[in-house]
Amino acid sequence: MNPSDLPQPNWLLSERARKLTSSAIREILKVTERPEVISFAGGLPAPATFPAERMREAAERVLRDAPGAALQYSATEGFLPLREWIAERYRVRLTQVLITTGSQQALDLLGKVLIDPGSRVLVETPTYLGALQSFSLYEPAYVQVPSDAAGLVPEALVPALTREARLLYAQPNFQNPTGRRMPVARREALAAFARESAFPVIEDDPYGALNYRGEPLPTLLSMAPEHIVHLGTFSKVLAPGLRIGYVIAPEALHAKLVQAKQATDLHTPSLTQRIAHEVLRDDFLDTHIPAIRTLYAAQCEAMLGSLARHMPEGVSWNRPEGGMFIWVQLPNGIDSMALLEAAIAQHVAFVPGAPFFADEAQASTLRLSFVTVPPEQIEQGVARLGQLLRERV
Amino acid sequence: MNPSDLPQPNWLLSERARKLTSSAIREILKVTERPEVISFAGGLPAPATFPAERMREAAERVLRDAPGAALQYSATEGFLPLREWIAERYRVRLTQVLITTGSQQALDLLGKVLIDPGSRVLVETPTYLGALQSFSLYEPAYVQVPSDAAGLVPEALVPALTREARLLYAQPNFQNPTGRRMPVARREALAAFARESAFPVIEDDPYGALNYRGEPLPTLLSMAPEHIVHLGTFSKVLAPGLRIGYVIAPEALHAKLVQAKQATDLHTPSLTQRIAHEVLRDDFLDTHIPAIRTLYAAQCEAMLGSLARHMPEGVSWNRPEGGMFIWVQLPNGIDSMALLEAAIAQHVAFVPGAPFFADEAQASTLRLSFVTVPPEQIEQGVARLGQLLRERV
Repeated sequence: MNPSDLPQPNWLLSERARKLTSSAIREILKVTERPEVISFAGGLPAPATFPAERMREAAERVLRDAPGAALQYSATEGFLPLREWIAERYRVRLTQVLITTGSQQALDLLGKVLIDPGSRVLVETPTYLGALQSFSLYEPAYVQVPSDAAGLVPEALVPALTREARLLYAQPNFQNPTGRRMPVARREALAAFARESAFPVIEDDPYGALNYRGEPLPTLLSMAPEHIVHLGTFSKVLAPGLRIGYVIAPEALHAKLVQAKQATDLHTPSLTQRIAHEVLRDDFLDTHIPAIRTLYAAQCEAMLGSLARHMPEGVSWNRPEGGMFIWVQLPNGIDSMALLEAAIAQHVAFVPGAPFFADEAQASTLRLSFVTVPPEQIEQGVARLGQLLRERV
Repeated sequence: MNPSDLPQPNWLLSERARKLTSSAIREILKVTERPEVISFAGGLPAPATFPAERMREAAERVLRDAPGAALQYSATEGFLPLREWIAERYRVRLTQVLITTGSQQALDLLGKVLIDPGSRVLVETPTYLGALQSFSLYEPAYVQVPSDAAGLVPEALVPALTREARLLYAQPNFQNPTGRRMPVARREALAAFARESAFPVIEDDPYGALNYRGEPLPTLLSMAPEHIVHLGTFSKVLAPGLRIGYVIAPEALHAKLVQAKQATDLHTPSLTQRIAHEVLRDDFLDTHIPAIRTLYAAQCEAMLGSLARHMPEGVSWNRPEGGMFIWVQLPNGIDSMALLEAAIAQHVAFVPGAPFFADEAQASTLRLSFVTVPPEQIEQGVARLGQLLRERV
């Protein structure tokens, strides 16, 4: 008998839980786990970038030298030497740093602490799906901020739009899903806005270290250190399976986030925090990150080449300067959700663009990840997508 | 300059965050981290019970044999072989099992999915402080269910009390904070109630394996497998620093918990789940748990002996048959919060009873943990407490 056919108690759920609907896309994308599927869907870092041997040695040392502490309950704020490492790297106060169970948890905690039902929450157009999922559990009213190829348009932040908002959420570096990067002038304008604003500007920065062309741009945090809430993660530069992120916030907000985290999972695992800190020693990232950049830059180039070779007239895409994603614009009238079903039949997968919009979804868009699949398969997969699109334009 | 003296942005917080107040007790208990303090406050398992060498070997194997998977993103539901292990041990369906980032996260997810502001939530008198902290973020109206030395009184669950409730939360085994255990007849009555109830009965069972006298009693889950939501954890039988708990729930609720968890932290770390599963192989717990029981039973006896030797007339306590805690009743009029301040000055700590009550706190109670501190120090610490009390009765 299928478990879902069993008689189930008909318990009353919370308002927020009743609004949760099983995602159609999530169901479709489950098939992408089959080995025959070439998946551009997941944002999975290439396992070749995981420093496995160094992790093994770090775990060995941590469990040999400090097993009692590594296996015991620990402080909600996080492992002190890891927090110190972060404070030093970002030139912020230790008292601003909270370790989270992945960046995703930082989003949940910010939702908990800042959003009431109906609170206005400002997001980019489009924005990170996972942030929408986290915030939505606190039942906000989303306000999409006009955005273009260079990201959020600061001039659009007029009082009529921002009134009574509780937060603004943005990814200035190689945004998920569009891969776009906000230029310095816009960062300065957004930092200035943050300094004057009655609510925090959240700078979510999972991809900042992955810049392939030119220089890294300064963070919003560096421009307005007392007014930006900055989220970082080790998922893209070490390994996502550790689930270690961090949030840097002014002390008054930090204190509330710590209290919320204590109620949420007490603390991030002591063991993984200590392993991460051990791996980071001796400036490991200074040599490791360039190696990731080289690999991903080549895969990005491979995908851009494949797209140029195989996409029909009328399909356009951006040339990301870093990160993991390319954003594709289909000719109007082609629904990427319907295209996904056809693509899955051809053993290729991507994520349709619609779920990344808080409102007024653009159905003729899609997101391709270039980091999980090697170049030969990128060529094959993009060729199949191109063929499907040629049949449709 | 003290960071808290810095000018801080005056951002508007959510209703739930504004209700969060810094716990006076938490501030006082921070000093218990000093080595000179004999602390009966924390519920910290004795590090001697952590299978450190086996953990080291497990980490070594996991990171040698499957580094790609152990360091990658993984399923929200949890590591499949670990879920299978749990399903088999509890004789439930795999589709009921969700791995959580410690049991604390299961409480947060249940709050998210079941509680609206003002929802009635039934709890024991007193109840686990961490559950109150988790649930409170969803702003329920608590209803204390009358309880006595044998735990929650099932006869008290009359319609006038249970009307419109969203959940009932209980710890039938060696409850935190009281150490009491619910006898079989009451379990049967509560399981029968769960089968007829319009809302779930949550059985939180962190201490069930730690029974020192007699036989383990059957779980509520075994009595009403389709109507009890059961929370378990590896924190007390392996190591809390892994932060691995689990929730067993009917599929309809399970599906909502999975969606809520995805929005909360995507998944529990892949690495720690695989290490835990590796440690559990070959029926490890069958030899490990009896060793923990032997150690803790001796420490429990030591504390009971010290209490008998040093406590003045008018102080009473229970004789727990398992778990980690003894609940102490002071003569009326002695406030355990004031006593704590005097005790800290003598380098002894405990947790005052008041915060464990959702309502109508009994100020003349306190909780002692007997698992963290070795017997010599138990004797010393209890002697000092006895002296302080003799000065007060």
